Amino acid sequence: MKTVCLRTLALTLVVWGLLISTLIVRPVSSQTVPAGVLDGFAPQASASQRSREEQFRAVPTATSAREHLKVLTAEPHVAGTKEDYATAVYVRDQIRSYGIPAELKEYDVLLPYPKQPSIVEIVGRRGGRLTVKEAVVPEDPTSSSPKIIPLFNGYSPSGDVTAPLVYVNYGLPPDYEALKKLGVDVKGKIVLARYGNSFRGVKAKVAEENGAIGLIIYSDPSDDGYTQGDVYPKGPWRPESSAQRGSVQYLFQYPGDPLTPGKPSIPGVERLKIEDATDLTRIPVQPISYGDARRLLEPMRGPLRPRGFQGGLPFAYHVGGTDDLRVHLKTEMDYQIRKIWNVIARIEGNEERDRWVIMGNHRDAWTFGAVDPNSGTTAMLEAARGFGQLLKNGWKPRRTMVLCSWDGEEYGLIGSTEWAEEYADELREKAVAYLNMDAAVSGAHFGASSVPSMWKLIRGATRDIRDPKTGKSIYQQWQDRSRESLPEPDMTDAQTGSDVNIAEARIGALGSGSDYTPFLQHLGVPSLDMGFGGDYGVYHSAYDSFYWMANFGDPTFAYHVAAAQLWGTVAMRLADAEGLPFDYVDYGDQINEFFGESVKTARRRSLSAAFDEKGMSDALEDFSREAAAVEKGRQETVLEVERTRAEANDRHRRAETRLKRINDALLATERALTDVQGLRGRSWYRHQIYAPGFYTGYAAQPLPDFRQALEDRSAANAREGLSRIVAAIKRATAILRQARD
Amino acid sequence: MKTVCLRTLALTLVVWGLLISTLIVRPVSSQTVPAGVLDGFAPQASASQRSREEQFRAVPTATSAREHLKVLTAEPHVAGTKEDYATAVYVRDQIRSYGIPAELKEYDVLLPYPKQPSIVEIVGRRGGRLTVKEAVVPEDPTSSSPKIIPLFNGYSPSGDVTAPLVYVNYGLPPDYEALKKLGVDVKGKIVLARYGNSFRGVKAKVAEENGAIGLIIYSDPSDDGYTQGDVYPKGPWRPESSAQRGSVQYLFQYPGDPLTPGKPSIPGVERLKIEDATDLTRIPVQPISYGDARRLLEPMRGPLRPRGFQGGLPFAYHVGGTDDLRVHLKTEMDYQIRKIWNVIARIEGNEERDRWVIMGNHRDAWTFGAVDPNSGTTAMLEAARGFGQLLKNGWKPRRTMVLCSWDGEEYGLIGSTEWAEEYADELREKAVAYLNMDAAVSGAHFGASSVPSMWKLIRGATRDIRDPKTGKSIYQQWQDRSRESLPEPDMTDAQTGSDVNIAEARIGALGSGSDYTPFLQHLGVPSLDMGFGGDYGVYHSAYDSFYWMANFGDPTFAYHVAAAQLWGTVAMRLADAEGLPFDYVDYGDQINEFFGESVKTARRRSLSAAFDEKGMSDALEDFSREAAAVEKGRQETVLEVERTRAEANDRHRRAETRLKRINDALLATERALTDVQGLRGRSWYRHQIYAPGFYTGYAAQPLPDFRQALEDRSAANAREGLSRIVAAIKRATAILRQARD
Repeated sequence: MKTVCLRTLALTLVVWGLLISTLIVRPVSSQTVPAGVLDGFAPQASASQRSREEQFRAVPTATSAREHLKVLTAEPHVAGTKEDYATAVYVRDQIRSYGIPAELKEYDVLLPYPKQPSIVEIVGRRGGRLTVKEAVVPEDPTSSSPKIIPLFNGYSPSGDVTAPLVYVNYGLPPDYEALKKLGVDVKGKIVLARYGNSFRGVKAKVAEENGAIGLIIYSDPSDDGYTQGDVYPKGPWRPESSAQRGSVQYLFQYPGDPLTPGKPSIPGVERLKIEDATDLTRIPVQPISYGDARRLLEPMRGPLRPRGFQGGLPFAYHVGGTDDLRVHLKTEMDYQIRKIWNVIARIEGNEERDRWVIMGNHRDAWTFGAVDPNSGTTAMLEAARGFGQLLKNGWKPRRTMVLCSWDGEEYGLIGSTEWAEEYADELREKAVAYLNMDAAVSGAHFGASSVPSMWKLIRGATRDIRDPKTGKSIYQQWQDRSRESLPEPDMTDAQTGSDVNIAEARIGALGSGSDYTPFLQHLGVPSLDMGFGGDYGVYHSAYDSFYWMANFGDPTFAYHVAAAQLWGTVAMRLADAEGLPFDYVDYGDQINEFFGESVKTARRRSLSAAFDEKGMSDALEDFSREAAAVEKGRQETVLEVERTRAEANDRHRRAETRLKRINDALLATERALTDVQGLRGRSWYRHQIYAPGFYTGYAAQPLPDFRQALEDRSAANAREGLSRIVAAIKRATAILRQARD
Repeated sequence: MKTVCLRTLALTLVVWGLLISTLIVRPVSSQTVPAGVLDGFAPQASASQRSREEQFRAVPTATSAREHLKVLTAEPHVAGTKEDYATAVYVRDQIRSYGIPAELKEYDVLLPYPKQPSIVEIVGRRGGRLTVKEAVVPEDPTSSSPKIIPLFNGYSPSGDVTAPLVYVNYGLPPDYEALKKLGVDVKGKIVLARYGNSFRGVKAKVAEENGAIGLIIYSDPSDDGYTQGDVYPKGPWRPESSAQRGSVQYLFQYPGDPLTPGKPSIPGVERLKIEDATDLTRIPVQPISYGDARRLLEPMRGPLRPRGFQGGLPFAYHVGGTDDLRVHLKTEMDYQIRKIWNVIARIEGNEERDRWVIMGNHRDAWTFGAVDPNSGTTAMLEAARGFGQLLKNGWKPRRTMVLCSWDGEEYGLIGSTEWAEEYADELREKAVAYLNMDAAVSGAHFGASSVPSMWKLIRGATRDIRDPKTGKSIYQQWQDRSRESLPEPDMTDAQTGSDVNIAEARIGALGSGSDYTPFLQHLGVPSLDMGFGGDYGVYHSAYDSFYWMANFGDPTFAYHVAAAQLWGTVAMRLADAEGLPFDYVDYGDQINEFFGESVKTARRRSLSAAFDEKGMSDALEDFSREAAAVEKGRQETVLEVERTRAEANDRHRRAETRLKRINDALLATERALTDVQGLRGRSWYRHQIYAPGFYTGYAAQPLPDFRQALEDRSAANAREGLSRIVAAIKRATAILRQARD
């Protein structure tokens, strides 16, 4: 599922304005751990860990990665199909072959397939049917597979509608406002939106809210086609006949099986009737290519498109809405309860068996899934092979490591959500962190999103792994790219010699669109998501294939190796560290900056008086103070445990007890930021700091209920939303305080 | 000539970064003249003036304007042709018919015409000749005229070259740098550049500097074609076969007849040999349409275009440079000394006959010139008709008014430059101001560029004239649009109720590209340029026609009327005011801000130590202090003259003498900002504050030699350049000081 590419991410960041972009550029903080020593490890343990990590990182190879990807992408493997099942068995068996126990875990969930290809046709004299099919590319052997699922949007209902067509740009609320200004109403019409700037489920919801009776979505060439570069198979970008499949579930309401919100889809569970599911759209939705879209857009009449609506097709867009162009859209879906198969592998912890470090990647794909998601699956298999080698050499991780190959992610994070819902209580007690990789490799540019407590962990691991292309560390390359994208500093006096421009590489905020959502936003498990991006224009198309990867994404498979090394290194540090390397000082700073930006918005909207700004500031100050104390205590205690180890006396036991208390608190702090009541109108989402935005769907909306209230200009909701956030921060502060008592 | 449209202007401003955009948004300054009283007039005189202006503004009509434009655009009238001569006679005779003396003024200047249509063809097996011809548009009757001059660039030499083609984006120095990074060298090759972001002569110069042997320039559809809106004749934008003619003279070296720099092209004057002229390119240059450009760009090989090079054609651009695509370019020009004809009309001043207020507009066009320049010619004729009516009613202006219809502007400001050079001494003594309108109307959006001393004058006049479309004042509409384009304020607390967002409408800096250049930048005459812009995609094409204007630019001709009213009003205020309404406080502030921005640039480039920042700041402080004193003295003296008029005693005479001294000083202050030595490497340009940029050509480069030195990272030149600027400011300060002595 996952956002298309770094460019889309950048656009998304723009939606959140300077907010995110300024927040994630942070000055280098002073080193709090002795140089060279891994955070959370005492010096000697750190040295052993480093040596073990080097053994681990020597295992993954390009040859092996290439072979995994070749097998995984041999056939299309949509969730619930027998080809999908075959990949589950492959992953299970591979992991078992490395000496790690692994099992299939099955759920019964609502999945629609297209009964037959959808029809999109122009009605009338000069009418005609659109192709709605991706062309065979002779160079790419899998592109002719008869098993490629027709172009459709997951969870579109069946429908049969005929009406004039209106072009609604990205299909977001301001686009409909712009159309209203032109006197164009979409009520009773079919709307044509372009992909981008939001999760596609948002486009469906906004279309429905505005009274449209059908939605067609296309990929404009200015977004991921020829305007970006050469198109497939000459280049990596989307060719004329290619369209983007994808789910239109209302992910921002709740993910997972639409019929079992908050509960696992296992035998005996009570299921909603489909008409009672609140995360499904009621209008038919259909994706098309820009080749097809041109046939609709070029003859359109009605007003010239407003500012910002023009795309990359070679004519001036008009918004339509007139009887000059009427369209017939017919979608026929086969909705069934079908089986999906997660693979769960487990390396038992030696000292803290009931502490779980979880790695997750989905396995199901809309077609071949070379990038999305099986570059990640490949990385997971290579990491598992590395762990297997260490196990053979006698290593046992301190904590339990769980490796999860999710199914049904493309439809709506289904495999991960059902599993997280089934084991919710156990996960709340035991989960240390959830480490996600979805589309792990589509190019050479590292990117990450994470809770702030793991920023240092991510940066540290990327410092220790080589970027294949440049030979620099991944961190260095990532930071250099971050710098390049910064505006030229205005106030720097080069003469002073001070380099105020040094900043850490940017780490984004977690929104949604991949499997970290149930862990972070439903359960409060510290989560991260990372991967290597690039020029990737074949997202969710028939061309997300082995041929594409071998020619554009990662011809040497070196980035698959790097992804495995990095993911495994982060997991091992979390699994083996005596003191958990979570830094809540960074978290406090981040919330503080989110809040500062929100306060500015509130001022602009005359809402400053509506809420208790000081209450929040005080709560944050307390939080940060406790976080700093715990951070100091953690580092001291790790050393104290090491120093007293030989003595094995009371002092040592006290230190160990103290470290356990600190680790337990660090684990519980994120949990405390969730709230059983959940977010306004979407109680499945419980995290008070991070949620996907209502009108972005993928991108994060920090301090979600507070910000949404500001968007809605509701003083009452702002007050109430902020008070819940303050309560969450106070709970988290109390947890941190327990750690040092 | 003039820049294409407001959008291009906006782009140009971007080139100068936040510099200009922040400078021209200025907080409302406190009103220094009593409310309702015209600046420079005593209250009673102001009332009479207002009543006279109303009489004046009642004269211009849409019917009459339409008729002028119809006549002026009946035939193509390139400078030096018999059709051009016919328009000169028409303008002279019309003005005479209003009771104003008018004469033709002839010059003999170097003008090339194409001997025959240029050839652009692809060499080789899949070769073929490009069309290089604008299509007949059935709806537009003049588009089939056989007299339309073939597509060519003015002052391109004849040439016949064959070589591989390289796409160089806008053809500016950073574009060539980007190509070098890709390993692409243009030496010995033909380059293909797109129009925009600079004067086209700059593209020729940079191509030549980089060793190219030919230059082809095309209009990319993303710049003024379908990406902007519907194309002609469905809409106002450039259609597929249309190309932009235009001069490639090195305007930034010197304008006017290339063979007589600094001297008038009159019988007996010594002329350079053509090969000694330093404002001419040596490589053939040819404009083509985007329809033709597509045939070159689509088959291009070589690296994918770097960031920023992609245009609006529907494929990924490559930069070429390989033998896959070789192009033959042949231009054949007929260079001759030809006659051109200015029309000079004069209304003698009643009290200050030797003070001239000059209005100027060019009359020659590349084709029909409906927008460029004859909307301006029409406005001038209607203003003249208004003056004629006032003269019949007994009005005589205090100062002399001179109305100039320039010829040969399109080739390089030739008519205005030769005239300014011929009458240089007299103009230096007598010229009060030069008021330019070139393309007066291509839409409904008012815009102006000016020396800062006339900002208040422009804003005041626009406050008194109605915007035809909205019924608001032109000022209000202009300001509203300026505000719309401002970013949302970040720091404003709406709760405080203070509207910190109020700002004056923006007035730009004068660069070059129209006839104010010889007046302002060679002679130091305070100048302004203004007009109404809009969606104008047919610039310098066969479609800049009456049909275009009547269907898109100004269907009701109401903006031609508004242009005449505004231009005439500004001229009358300057001609009739007892105290010249020039405000040098604004000028001081503006220079101060230019300098502040330059200092920031200097710091970034470690050049701060190279120049005397304090010397400049002190000079500016003195200048501003004197300017404020003169401003105060001027207003007091105008009142004193009025108050003592009945007495006709010594006191009155002293006040009159004092006012004359102030007026003379205000006139001489701008002169003092010029310098006989001129700018570095281009001594024709004498103004130390304003010049066209070396690498923009149209856009202004404020503090030109200082800024250029910073661009070139030359400490020595920065020091020397700034010292000349400081000297100029000190001369100006001394002049202002004389006013109050």
